[in-house]
Amino acid sequence: MTASAPAMMDRQEFEAALRQIGAERYHSLHPFQIKLQNGELTREQVQAWALNRYYYQANIPVKDSYILARLDTPELRREWRQRIIDHDGEEGQRGGIEKWIALTDGVGLDRDYVVSGRGILPGTRFAVDAYVHFVRERTLLEAIASSLTELFSPNVIGVRTKGMLQHYDFISRETLAYFDKRPVQAKRDSDFALEYCLEHARRPEEQQAVLAALRFKCHVLWAQLDALHFSYVEPGLIPPDAWRPGEALVAVGAAA
Amino acid sequence: MTASAPAMMDRQEFEAALRQIGAERYHSLHPFQIKLQNGELTREQVQAWALNRYYYQANIPVKDSYILARLDTPELRREWRQRIIDHDGEEGQRGGIEKWIALTDGVGLDRDYVVSGRGILPGTRFAVDAYVHFVRERTLLEAIASSLTELFSPNVIGVRTKGMLQHYDFISRETLAYFDKRPVQAKRDSDFALEYCLEHARRPEEQQAVLAALRFKCHVLWAQLDALHFSYVEPGLIPPDAWRPGEALVAVGAAA
Repeated sequence: MTASAPAMMDRQEFEAALRQIGAERYHSLHPFQIKLQNGELTREQVQAWALNRYYYQANIPVKDSYILARLDTPELRREWRQRIIDHDGEEGQRGGIEKWIALTDGVGLDRDYVVSGRGILPGTRFAVDAYVHFVRERTLLEAIASSLTELFSPNVIGVRTKGMLQHYDFISRETLAYFDKRPVQAKRDSDFALEYCLEHARRPEEQQAVLAALRFKCHVLWAQLDALHFSYVEPGLIPPDAWRPGEALVAVGAAA
Repeated sequence: MTASAPAMMDRQEFEAALRQIGAERYHSLHPFQIKLQNGELTREQVQAWALNRYYYQANIPVKDSYILARLDTPELRREWRQRIIDHDGEEGQRGGIEKWIALTDGVGLDRDYVVSGRGILPGTRFAVDAYVHFVRERTLLEAIASSLTELFSPNVIGVRTKGMLQHYDFISRETLAYFDKRPVQAKRDSDFALEYCLEHARRPEEQQAVLAALRFKCHVLWAQLDALHFSYVEPGLIPPDAWRPGEALVAVGAAA
């Protein structure tokens, strides 16, 4: 089997090809995400989502630290480190991870249990770990390209937040505070990463590697929702050792 | 939250604890495996299984090479390298990977497509890659312990082979030749690995790490069947870019 060599795309074609990947594969298209924002999930299913996604959130600064370690100028590192500050917080400013814990608090999950990672789905762990490994092991260009799913997130966040506030009486604006700043941060971060990829993919093979990295990352996000959907929605086959509805609960408001 | 320190188990207790993990979590308990051996899958679903499991098979000698690289005596390496020979083959003796390709040939899948890994489920890739990474990154004791699922495979292989031959007219004994030698190889390999773990886990924490490694590996196997079941059986939601029934087929017998 022979594949013809890919042609070099101009800047516009290349950006269009990147955006097309999101249009076809971003996890906003996943049935679990659609049920989540349409109010079609039970409280237990929303708890499963919050619990599992904590592991993803907790690993974002880890993967960004690996990228930071590979950037070779103070200018590039200053730009990228903002992502880590956003997630880990700073004096007087809660970070994204702390806000995600407010979300798991808000839906009534025990905080120590959430942070421990016990009870997350193997599908979550394997997908998130695959992302961290990808960023460590692939080229810097591919590692940066794998962050480009944020190109597609700002609109989705608005729709999801609005839908969840409207449909779930156990969700408050404070519970979803994580998402308040994400659209602005995601736009800033993805503008930078997109420009980097458009600029640094100088051969057809590099363009193809960037496209493949973005597809990979879409798979990482999709696989996490697959695991949630299939374990807790349909057919509802929870794998051994994973969290079961009713476990690790606290009275809402009881967490410090 | 405080956990009491684990106690040191004697040899019998420790082995019993290892076997109990398999009794509760080995993938022979997974609905997909049960359907497979009971003849309840379609040809397309068996193709999906053969295609995806090829990626697992192809990575077994990779993970064993990482273990080989960490064994520090000729005696230990001579023992462990037999696993690589079994999978990669030798003069006059087909290896396990070649036999698995005979299986994907036998169910009518295009060989180049299978070997390329295109079309495998992200859930397969992430689980298998998690296994390879585990073996690279954890202690040697944990890496060896993660192979102990083979303690549970010999009986299961017999049941599966018999069931598949009985129920599927598109499966022949030659198609399943991969499994002919596996029970004997698996017993030899797992006897060695079990003895190694019983001998080298000398502190309670090491025993707990061995147990956790075996649980992890059960999750790796289970997650692969989860991905197959949920994508191709129920509810049958195939993720973007994954193989779809009807793709990459050849006439059976046409492959060289």
